[in-house]
Amino acid sequence: MDLVEVSRTKTFGGFQRVYSHVSKVLGCSMRFGVYSPPQIENKKLPVIYWLSGLTCTEANFIEKSGIQRYAAEHGVIIVNPDTSPRNVNIPGDRENWDFGEGAGFYVDAETEPWKNNYNMYSYVTKELIEIVNTNFSVLEGCQSIMGHSMGGHGALICALKNPGLYKSVSAFAPICNPINCPWGKKAFLGYLGPQETSNWTDWDATELVKNYNGPPIVLLIDQGTEDKFYKECQLLPENLIEKCKIWKMPVILNRRDGYDHSYFYIASFIEEHIKHHMQYLH
Amino acid sequence: MDLVEVSRTKTFGGFQRVYSHVSKVLGCSMRFGVYSPPQIENKKLPVIYWLSGLTCTEANFIEKSGIQRYAAEHGVIIVNPDTSPRNVNIPGDRENWDFGEGAGFYVDAETEPWKNNYNMYSYVTKELIEIVNTNFSVLEGCQSIMGHSMGGHGALICALKNPGLYKSVSAFAPICNPINCPWGKKAFLGYLGPQETSNWTDWDATELVKNYNGPPIVLLIDQGTEDKFYKECQLLPENLIEKCKIWKMPVILNRRDGYDHSYFYIASFIEEHIKHHMQYLH
Repeated sequence: MDLVEVSRTKTFGGFQRVYSHVSKVLGCSMRFGVYSPPQIENKKLPVIYWLSGLTCTEANFIEKSGIQRYAAEHGVIIVNPDTSPRNVNIPGDRENWDFGEGAGFYVDAETEPWKNNYNMYSYVTKELIEIVNTNFSVLEGCQSIMGHSMGGHGALICALKNPGLYKSVSAFAPICNPINCPWGKKAFLGYLGPQETSNWTDWDATELVKNYNGPPIVLLIDQGTEDKFYKECQLLPENLIEKCKIWKMPVILNRRDGYDHSYFYIASFIEEHIKHHMQYLH
Repeated sequence: MDLVEVSRTKTFGGFQRVYSHVSKVLGCSMRFGVYSPPQIENKKLPVIYWLSGLTCTEANFIEKSGIQRYAAEHGVIIVNPDTSPRNVNIPGDRENWDFGEGAGFYVDAETEPWKNNYNMYSYVTKELIEIVNTNFSVLEGCQSIMGHSMGGHGALICALKNPGLYKSVSAFAPICNPINCPWGKKAFLGYLGPQETSNWTDWDATELVKNYNGPPIVLLIDQGTEDKFYKECQLLPENLIEKCKIWKMPVILNRRDGYDHSYFYIASFIEEHIKHHMQYLH
């Protein structure tokens, strides 16, 4: 659990840091970002976890989202992990941009050779929270989760599979129904095994809505209308909305006219998401 | 003067575009960024030019500064060129990160083999302005300039050498006195020739202050106290301030406690700079 400070940069009155540590559940050295706003000097603060999308490291969100301004304004810590184990040298883990390194899909793998390392779900929902609670001045239990694309899927399943763990959840252009899109099918086949003999539905937000049984939580979903991957049916927000209606799960879908899948889109609306989360974190 | 749209992304209600074109004064294909805020649909708008620092392309500022939010709020077009000619294949132009590609230093070169291409000063102050005035809905003559590090030097000399051309000027961590710092000496020796036989002082903000003879203009300078390059005496803002006092040039130096040289620092204060420029552009 020893943390090594990789970098530390003052911004918007607080500090953007990157740490590395050895993860037990992933069996490798991992990095994550922590933005501590200036309010941290006087009191414990809530935390928002951010999960990034395919091909990202912890750096993309830190450099491109503009989050630090809003975290400083609202007095919230932001923690963002990497998107997969790194340097575990499983054959084939660097051959695809949508599977293996940079594409952990926030599941716990059940197949060889992935299951010893590709446990991003346990990393995000257990190990990382423990590390953050132990090492930073956080209001324990006062945490929310958000993400983008693959990380939007991650945020949704982390919230839906752990009622009460997160006060709120939101997602930009999430992969809402991975068992029905090419990215999700490829990843689940690889990490979980054939659909017929494994529980793909345990890792799919659209499927998890049915059995959610916990404190009310609103699923805040954002989707750009000019998102290439939305048009290619990788994201399928309509499937999630349909199931939310059936199963009476509160959901908000904000369609953003003309926006794509990029961090330019995320930057445009992340302030709205932070405001949403702060309603539940105060 | 034909422009090719390389990319176009909606953000903060406007569009961030990158264009490429063949530059006459540089003798190569160049890229520049243009952010058009939503107000562009109804009226002509002022322009702020941004000049980036060593090693940058047009991408760094576009992706990391957060400028689009403030440009959209204030209704101003942002134009940011690349930092040097590209792919002109001069021997040695890619061997150094602080000379050649990515390090044009915003001068017009006078030495072989650089003088046919390395004319970033004329590019920024003449050709690029013509292209922007011809192709975009700008209020002609209503323009300001800003930059960072090498680009802060560039912004200052472009303003000081062209009284009245820019309504205002500002710089983050500028190389204020290149003839007295290692970066500047190396670049000027290469592009201009030995100091004894060439006019280095024509390209140095601290030297140009003495002979400025035009409409009053305030030099707005920003400097982080934990900036590695400031500590290494590459930037020398105190030299500029001293000459401004002597020659009665209005100057503001904002020292930012604990901030470094990065885009995290720029992002923290760029809103202040935009507000400064808008006082003069409205």
